[in-house]
Amino acid sequence: MSDPIQNLIHELTRLPSVGEKTATRLAFHLLKTPTETALALSRAIAEVKEKVRLCNRCFHLTSGEECNLCIDPRREGDRICVVEEPLDLLAIEKSRIYRGRYHVLHGVLSPIDGVGPDQLRIEPLLARIPAEQVREVILATNPSVEGEATAIYLAKLLKPMGVRISRIAHGIPMGGELEYTDELTIGRALTDRREM
Amino acid sequence: MSDPIQNLIHELTRLPSVGEKTATRLAFHLLKTPTETALALSRAIAEVKEKVRLCNRCFHLTSGEECNLCIDPRREGDRICVVEEPLDLLAIEKSRIYRGRYHVLHGVLSPIDGVGPDQLRIEPLLARIPAEQVREVILATNPSVEGEATAIYLAKLLKPMGVRISRIAHGIPMGGELEYTDELTIGRALTDRREM
Repeated sequence: MSDPIQNLIHELTRLPSVGEKTATRLAFHLLKTPTETALALSRAIAEVKEKVRLCNRCFHLTSGEECNLCIDPRREGDRICVVEEPLDLLAIEKSRIYRGRYHVLHGVLSPIDGVGPDQLRIEPLLARIPAEQVREVILATNPSVEGEATAIYLAKLLKPMGVRISRIAHGIPMGGELEYTDELTIGRALTDRREM
Repeated sequence: MSDPIQNLIHELTRLPSVGEKTATRLAFHLLKTPTETALALSRAIAEVKEKVRLCNRCFHLTSGEECNLCIDPRREGDRICVVEEPLDLLAIEKSRIYRGRYHVLHGVLSPIDGVGPDQLRIEPLLARIPAEQVREVILATNPSVEGEATAIYLAKLLKPMGVRISRIAHGIPMGGELEYTDELTIGRALTDRREM
Protein backbone atom coordinates (compact mmCIF):
# COMPACT_ATOMS: atom_id res chain seq x y z
CA MET A 1 0.00 0.00 0.00
CA SER A 2 1.20 3.53 -0.61
CA ASP A 3 2.85 5.42 2.24
CA PRO A 4 0.15 8.06 2.86
CA ILE A 5 -2.47 5.29 3.28
CA GLN A 6 -0.20 3.26 5.56
CA ASN A 7 0.45 6.39 7.59
CA LEU A 8 -3.26 7.22 7.90
CA ILE A 9 -4.03 3.65 9.04
CA HIS A 10 -1.24 3.91 11.59
CA GLU A 11 -2.58 7.20 12.99
CA LEU A 12 -6.15 5.84 13.10
CA THR A 13 -5.06 2.81 15.18
CA ARG A 14 -4.14 5.26 17.97
CA LEU A 15 -7.85 5.94 18.50
CA PRO A 16 -9.51 3.96 21.30
CA SER A 17 -10.85 0.53 20.26
CA VAL A 18 -9.68 1.00 16.66
CA GLY A 19 -7.54 -1.94 15.55
CA GLU A 20 -5.71 -2.53 12.27
CA LYS A 21 -8.86 -3.81 10.56
CA THR A 22 -11.15 -0.95 11.58
CA ALA A 23 -8.42 1.58 10.79
CA THR A 24 -8.07 0.12 7.28
CA ARG A 25 -11.83 0.29 6.76
CA LEU A 26 -11.92 3.90 7.98
CA ALA A 27 -8.95 4.88 5.81
CA PHE A 28 -10.55 3.45 2.67
CA HIS A 29 -13.80 5.15 3.56
CA LEU A 30 -11.95 8.48 3.77
CA LEU A 31 -10.31 7.74 0.41
CA LYS A 32 -13.71 7.18 -1.20
CA THR A 33 -15.44 10.09 0.50
CA PRO A 34 -15.57 13.50 -1.26
CA THR A 35 -12.40 15.50 -0.58
CA GLU A 36 -14.38 18.30 1.07
CA THR A 37 -15.90 15.92 3.65
CA ALA A 38 -12.55 14.36 4.51
CA LEU A 39 -10.86 17.75 4.81
CA ALA A 40 -13.71 18.97 7.05
CA LEU A 41 -12.84 16.17 9.49
CA SER A 42 -9.13 16.95 9.21
CA ARG A 43 -9.81 20.63 9.98
CA ALA A 44 -12.25 19.82 12.81
CA ILE A 45 -9.53 17.82 14.59
CA ALA A 46 -6.96 20.59 14.19
CA GLU A 47 -9.46 23.23 15.26
CA VAL A 48 -10.43 21.41 18.43
CA LYS A 49 -6.78 21.25 19.49
CA GLU A 50 -6.26 24.89 18.61
CA LYS A 51 -9.38 26.44 20.09
CA VAL A 52 -10.60 24.25 22.94
CA ARG A 53 -9.16 25.01 26.36
CA LEU A 54 -10.23 24.58 29.97
CA CYS A 55 -12.75 26.95 31.53
CA ASN A 56 -10.99 29.34 33.93
CA ARG A 57 -13.55 28.65 36.61
CA CYS A 58 -14.78 25.04 36.46
CA PHE A 59 -12.18 23.46 34.12
CA HIS A 60 -14.81 22.12 31.75
CA LEU A 61 -13.87 22.31 28.07
CA THR A 62 -14.63 25.58 26.33
CA SER A 63 -13.52 27.73 23.43
CA GLY A 64 -13.87 30.93 25.47
CA GLU A 65 -12.48 32.17 28.79
CA GLU A 66 -15.29 30.58 30.76
CA CYS A 67 -17.60 27.74 29.66
CA ASN A 68 -21.26 28.09 28.63
CA LEU A 69 -22.40 26.64 31.95
CA CYS A 70 -20.38 29.10 34.05
CA ILE A 71 -21.57 32.19 32.17
CA ASP A 72 -25.22 31.06 32.05
CA PRO A 73 -27.01 33.29 34.62
CA ARG A 74 -29.92 30.83 34.84
CA ARG A 75 -27.74 28.20 36.54
CA GLU A 76 -27.87 28.10 40.36
CA GLY A 77 -24.55 29.60 41.41
CA ASP A 78 -24.53 28.35 45.00
CA ARG A 79 -24.34 24.66 44.07
CA ILE A 80 -21.32 22.88 42.59
CA CYS A 81 -21.29 19.33 41.27
CA VAL A 82 -17.76 17.84 41.27
CA VAL A 83 -16.97 15.33 38.51
CA GLU A 84 -13.88 13.48 37.33
CA GLU A 85 -14.03 14.22 33.61
CA PRO A 86 -15.91 16.44 31.12
CA LEU A 87 -17.76 13.36 29.80
CA ASP A 88 -19.21 12.81 33.30
CA LEU A 89 -20.48 16.39 33.26
CA LEU A 90 -22.18 15.78 29.92
CA ALA A 91 -23.79 12.59 31.27
CA ILE A 92 -25.24 14.54 34.21
CA GLU A 93 -26.42 17.37 31.96
CA LYS A 94 -28.31 14.85 29.84
CA SER A 95 -30.44 13.88 32.87
CA ARG A 96 -31.75 17.50 32.98
CA ILE A 97 -32.19 17.19 36.75
CA TYR A 98 -29.30 19.37 37.90
CA ARG A 99 -29.37 23.14 37.41
CA GLY A 100 -26.26 24.21 39.35
CA ARG A 101 -22.65 24.60 38.27
CA TYR A 102 -19.81 22.11 37.96
CA HIS A 103 -16.18 21.57 38.79
CA VAL A 104 -14.10 19.13 36.74
CA LEU A 105 -11.20 17.51 38.64
CA HIS A 106 -9.58 15.97 35.52
CA GLY A 107 -8.85 12.69 37.24
CA VAL A 108 -9.10 10.95 40.60
CA LEU A 109 -6.64 10.37 43.43
CA SER A 110 -4.67 7.28 42.50
CA PRO A 111 -1.39 6.76 44.38
CA ILE A 112 -0.56 3.75 42.16
CA ASP A 113 -0.63 5.97 39.05
CA GLY A 114 1.19 8.75 40.91
CA VAL A 115 -1.88 11.03 40.95
CA GLY A 116 -1.97 13.04 44.16
CA PRO A 117 -4.12 16.06 45.15
CA ASP A 118 -1.73 18.44 43.34
CA GLN A 119 -2.44 16.79 39.97
CA LEU A 120 -6.18 17.47 40.32
CA ARG A 121 -8.03 20.81 40.20
CA ILE A 122 -8.72 20.73 43.95
CA GLU A 123 -7.17 24.05 45.05
CA PRO A 124 -9.33 26.08 42.62
CA LEU A 125 -12.41 24.19 43.87
CA LEU A 126 -11.70 25.20 47.47
CA ALA A 127 -11.15 28.79 46.35
CA ARG A 128 -14.57 28.86 44.66
CA ILE A 129 -16.50 28.04 47.87
CA PRO A 130 -16.13 31.49 49.51
CA ALA A 131 -15.69 33.40 46.24
CA GLU A 132 -18.98 32.17 44.78
CA GLN A 133 -20.81 31.82 48.11
CA VAL A 134 -21.37 28.12 47.45
CA ARG A 135 -23.77 26.39 49.82
CA GLU A 136 -23.73 22.81 48.52
CA VAL A 137 -21.09 20.62 46.90
CA ILE A 138 -22.31 17.40 45.29
CA LEU A 139 -19.51 14.85 44.94
CA ALA A 140 -20.21 12.95 41.72
CA THR A 141 -16.96 11.04 41.25
CA ASN A 142 -17.41 7.47 40.04
CA PRO A 143 -18.26 4.68 42.50
CA SER A 144 -14.80 3.12 41.97
CA VAL A 145 -12.19 2.69 44.72
CA GLU A 146 -10.38 5.84 43.51
CA GLY A 147 -13.61 7.78 43.02
CA GLU A 148 -14.78 6.94 46.55
CA ALA A 149 -11.39 7.84 48.04
CA THR A 150 -11.40 11.15 46.18
CA ALA A 151 -14.92 11.93 47.41
CA ILE A 152 -13.91 11.18 51.02
CA TYR A 153 -10.76 13.29 50.66
CA LEU A 154 -12.73 16.25 49.26
CA ALA A 155 -15.42 15.90 51.94
CA LYS A 156 -12.76 16.24 54.64
CA LEU A 157 -11.35 19.40 53.04
CA LEU A 158 -14.77 20.96 52.45
CA LYS A 159 -16.36 20.20 55.86
CA PRO A 160 -14.55 23.01 57.75
CA MET A 161 -15.74 25.50 55.11
CA GLY A 162 -19.33 25.22 56.38
CA VAL A 163 -20.72 23.95 53.11
CA ARG A 164 -23.33 21.22 52.69
CA ILE A 165 -21.67 18.13 51.18
CA SER A 166 -23.54 15.33 49.43
CA ARG A 167 -22.62 12.24 47.44
CA ILE A 168 -24.64 10.97 44.47
CA ALA A 169 -26.71 7.90 45.37
CA HIS A 170 -25.57 4.41 44.46
CA GLY A 171 -28.07 1.60 44.07
CA ILE A 172 -30.00 -0.53 41.61
CA PRO A 173 -30.05 1.25 38.22
CA MET A 174 -33.50 2.30 37.00
CA GLY A 175 -34.92 -0.54 34.92
CA GLY A 176 -32.24 -2.84 36.33
CA GLU A 177 -33.10 -6.22 37.79
CA LEU A 178 -32.05 -7.39 41.25
CA GLU A 179 -31.21 -10.81 39.85
CA TYR A 180 -28.54 -9.38 37.57
CA THR A 181 -27.18 -6.70 39.89
CA ASP A 182 -23.78 -7.33 41.50
CA GLU A 183 -23.68 -7.89 45.27
CA LEU A 184 -21.77 -4.68 46.03
CA THR A 185 -24.50 -2.59 44.42
CA ILE A 186 -27.26 -4.55 46.17
CA GLY A 187 -25.45 -4.13 49.50
CA ARG A 188 -25.21 -0.39 48.89
CA ALA A 189 -28.86 -0.18 47.85
CA LEU A 190 -29.85 -1.83 51.15
CA THR A 191 -27.61 0.33 53.32
CA ASP A 192 -28.81 3.51 51.63
CA ARG A 193 -32.51 2.51 51.66
CA ARG A 194 -34.99 5.39 51.90
CA GLU A 195 -38.06 5.76 54.12
CA MET A 196 -41.27 5.68 52.05
CA MET B 1 -20.66 21.97 24.55
CA SER B 2 -18.42 24.40 22.69
CA ASP B 3 -18.80 24.74 18.92
CA PRO B 4 -15.46 23.20 17.85
CA ILE B 5 -16.24 20.04 19.85
CA GLN B 6 -19.80 19.85 18.49
CA ASN B 7 -18.39 20.28 15.01
CA LEU B 8 -15.78 17.55 15.48
CA ILE B 9 -18.44 15.15 16.81
CA HIS B 10 -20.61 15.97 13.79
CA GLU B 11 -17.77 15.28 11.34
CA LEU B 12 -16.87 12.03 13.12
CA THR B 13 -20.44 10.71 12.83
CA ARG B 14 -19.97 10.71 9.03
CA LEU B 15 -17.54 7.80 9.42
CA PRO B 16 -19.01 4.32 8.87
CA SER B 17 -20.55 2.71 11.98
CA VAL B 18 -19.71 5.74 14.12
CA GLY B 19 -22.81 7.02 15.94
CA GLU B 20 -23.27 10.02 18.21
CA LYS B 21 -21.94 8.12 21.24
CA THR B 22 -18.79 6.75 19.59
CA ALA B 23 -18.13 10.13 17.97
CA THR B 24 -18.33 11.83 21.37
CA ARG B 25 -15.94 9.30 22.87
CA LEU B 26 -13.50 9.75 19.96
CA ALA B 27 -13.73 13.55 20.18
CA PHE B 28 -12.95 13.57 23.89
CA HIS B 29 -10.11 11.15 23.30
CA LEU B 30 -8.65 13.55 20.73
CA LEU B 31 -9.08 16.42 23.21
CA LYS B 32 -7.08 14.52 25.84
CA THR B 33 -4.44 13.23 23.49
CA PRO B 34 -1.20 15.22 23.03
CA THR B 35 -1.63 17.95 20.40
CA GLU B 36 1.11 16.44 18.21
CA THR B 37 -0.69 13.08 18.00
CA ALA B 38 -4.04 14.65 17.14
CA LEU B 39 -2.48 16.90 14.51
CA ALA B 40 -0.66 13.90 13.00
CA LEU B 41 -4.06 12.30 12.38
CA SER B 42 -5.45 15.55 10.99
CA ARG B 43 -2.50 15.83 8.59
CA ALA B 44 -2.65 12.14 7.62
CA ILE B 45 -6.26 12.59 6.50
CA ALA B 46 -5.44 15.71 4.46
CA GLU B 47 -2.35 14.07 2.96
CA VAL B 48 -4.21 10.98 1.82
CA LYS B 49 -6.71 13.15 -0.06
CA GLU B 50 -3.95 15.26 -1.56
CA LYS B 51 -1.49 12.55 -2.58
CA VAL B 52 -3.39 9.33 -3.20
CA ARG B 53 -4.73 8.82 -6.71
CA LEU B 54 -5.60 5.89 -8.94
CA CYS B 55 -2.88 3.88 -10.70
CA ASN B 56 -2.80 4.73 -14.42
CA ARG B 57 -2.73 1.08 -15.33
CA CYS B 58 -4.75 -1.00 -12.85
CA PHE B 59 -6.68 1.74 -10.95
CA HIS B 60 -5.47 0.57 -7.56
CA LEU B 61 -4.67 3.36 -5.11
CA THR B 62 -1.19 4.83 -5.33
CA SER B 63 0.74 7.99 -4.60
CA GLY B 64 2.72 7.68 -7.85
CA GLU B 65 1.82 7.36 -11.53
CA GLU B 66 1.56 3.59 -11.30
CA CYS B 67 1.05 1.47 -8.16
CA ASN B 68 3.71 -0.64 -6.44
CA LEU B 69 2.19 -3.82 -7.86
CA CYS B 70 2.26 -2.59 -11.47
CA ILE B 71 5.87 -1.43 -11.33
CA ASP B 72 7.11 -4.54 -9.50
CA PRO B 73 9.00 -6.58 -12.17
CA ARG B 74 8.70 -9.76 -10.08
CA ARG B 75 4.94 -9.90 -10.63
CA GLU B 76 3.73 -12.12 -13.47
CA GLY B 77 2.69 -9.65 -16.15
CA ASP B 78 0.59 -12.03 -18.24
CA ARG B 79 -2.03 -12.64 -15.57
CA ILE B 80 -4.64 -10.11 -14.38
CA CYS B 81 -6.95 -10.56 -11.41
CA VAL B 82 -10.07 -8.38 -11.68
CA VAL B 83 -11.55 -7.12 -8.40
CA GLU B 84 -14.33 -4.73 -7.42
CA GLU B 85 -12.51 -2.54 -4.90
CA PRO B 86 -8.98 -1.85 -3.62
CA LEU B 87 -9.88 -3.57 -0.32
CA ASP B 88 -10.58 -6.79 -2.27
CA LEU B 89 -7.12 -6.53 -3.83
CA LEU B 90 -5.57 -6.21 -0.37
CA ALA B 91 -7.51 -9.26 0.85
CA ILE B 92 -6.14 -11.32 -2.05
CA GLU B 93 -2.61 -10.03 -1.50
CA LYS B 94 -2.80 -11.17 2.14
CA SER B 95 -3.28 -14.78 0.97
CA ARG B 96 0.18 -14.62 -0.70
CA ILE B 97 -0.97 -17.14 -3.32
CA TYR B 98 -1.33 -14.83 -6.31
CA ARG B 99 1.74 -13.32 -7.99
CA GLY B 100 0.18 -11.67 -11.04
CA ARG B 101 -1.22 -8.18 -11.55
CA TYR B 102 -4.62 -6.69 -10.81
CA HIS B 103 -7.34 -4.55 -12.29
CA VAL B 104 -9.72 -2.65 -10.01
CA LEU B 105 -13.19 -2.02 -11.48
CA HIS B 106 -14.30 0.40 -8.73
CA GLY B 107 -17.75 -1.10 -8.51
CA VAL B 108 -20.00 -3.73 -10.07
CA LEU B 109 -22.71 -3.60 -12.70
CA SER B 110 -25.89 -2.62 -10.91
CA PRO B 111 -28.71 -1.32 -13.11
CA ILE B 112 -30.80 -0.49 -9.99
CA ASP B 113 -28.09 1.91 -8.77
CA GLY B 114 -27.55 3.22 -12.30
CA VAL B 115 -24.11 1.63 -12.63
CA GLY B 116 -23.55 0.47 -16.20
CA PRO B 117 -20.34 -0.68 -17.94
CA ASP B 118 -19.30 2.94 -18.59
CA GLN B 119 -19.09 3.69 -14.87
CA LEU B 120 -16.57 0.87 -14.33
CA ARG B 121 -12.95 0.65 -15.52
CA ILE B 122 -13.82 -1.95 -18.15
CA GLU B 123 -12.49 -0.24 -21.32
CA PRO B 124 -8.96 0.12 -19.88
CA LEU B 125 -9.07 -3.56 -18.84
CA LEU B 126 -9.83 -4.64 -22.41
CA ALA B 127 -7.05 -2.39 -23.70
CA ARG B 128 -4.56 -4.06 -21.35
CA ILE B 129 -5.08 -7.56 -22.81
CA PRO B 130 -3.18 -7.02 -26.08
CA ALA B 131 -0.95 -4.23 -24.73
CA GLU B 132 0.44 -6.38 -21.90
CA GLN B 133 0.13 -9.71 -23.73
CA VAL B 134 -2.16 -11.04 -21.01
CA ARG B 135 -2.87 -14.76 -21.14
CA GLU B 136 -5.20 -15.24 -18.17
CA VAL B 137 -7.85 -13.07 -16.54
CA ILE B 138 -9.11 -14.21 -13.12
CA LEU B 139 -12.52 -12.76 -12.32
CA ALA B 140 -12.57 -12.16 -8.56
CA THR B 141 -15.70 -10.06 -8.15
CA ASN B 142 -17.79 -10.94 -5.10
CA PRO B 143 -20.22 -13.90 -5.21
CA SER B 144 -23.18 -11.50 -5.02
CA VAL B 145 -25.84 -11.15 -7.73
CA GLU B 146 -24.09 -8.04 -9.09
CA GLY B 147 -20.63 -9.58 -8.78
CA GLU B 148 -21.72 -12.69 -10.68
CA ALA B 149 -23.41 -10.62 -13.39
CA THR B 150 -20.30 -8.48 -13.77
CA ALA B 151 -18.11 -11.57 -14.07
CA ILE B 152 -20.39 -13.06 -16.75
CA TYR B 153 -20.44 -9.71 -18.62
CA LEU B 154 -16.64 -9.47 -18.56
CA ALA B 155 -16.21 -13.11 -19.61
CA LYS B 156 -18.33 -12.43 -22.70
CA LEU B 157 -16.21 -9.41 -23.66
CA LEU B 158 -12.91 -11.19 -23.01
CA LYS B 159 -13.66 -14.50 -24.72
CA PRO B 160 -13.13 -13.23 -28.31
CA MET B 161 -9.73 -11.84 -27.25
CA GLY B 162 -8.32 -15.38 -26.97
CA VAL B 163 -7.48 -15.07 -23.29
CA ARG B 164 -7.98 -17.77 -20.63
CA ILE B 165 -10.77 -16.72 -18.30
CA SER B 166 -11.29 -18.13 -14.80
CA ARG B 167 -13.54 -17.38 -11.85
CA ILE B 168 -12.43 -17.71 -8.20
CA ALA B 169 -13.88 -20.84 -6.57
CA HIS B 170 -16.89 -20.66 -4.29
CA GLY B 171 -17.48 -23.32 -1.64
CA ILE B 172 -17.21 -24.17 2.04
CA PRO B 173 -14.77 -21.73 3.68
CA MET B 174 -11.61 -23.32 5.12
CA GLY B 175 -12.31 -24.23 8.75
CA GLY B 176 -16.03 -23.74 8.10
CA GLU B 177 -18.58 -26.37 9.11
CA LEU B 178 -21.13 -27.86 6.74
CA GLU B 179 -23.77 -27.64 9.47
CA TYR B 180 -23.49 -23.85 9.61
CA THR B 181 -22.96 -23.17 5.91
CA ASP B 182 -25.87 -21.69 3.94
CA GLU B 183 -27.56 -23.87 1.31
CA LEU B 184 -26.44 -21.74 -1.66
CA THR B 185 -22.78 -22.23 -0.71
CA ILE B 186 -23.25 -25.97 -0.12
CA GLY B 187 -25.01 -26.28 -3.48
CA ARG B 188 -22.13 -24.48 -5.16
CA ALA B 189 -19.55 -26.63 -3.34
CA LEU B 190 -21.27 -29.76 -4.65
CA THR B 191 -21.61 -28.50 -8.24
CA ASP B 192 -17.96 -27.37 -8.30
CA ARG B 193 -16.64 -30.57 -6.62
CA ARG B 194 -13.11 -31.60 -7.66
CA GLU B 195 -11.79 -35.01 -8.62
CA MET B 196 -9.37 -36.36 -5.99
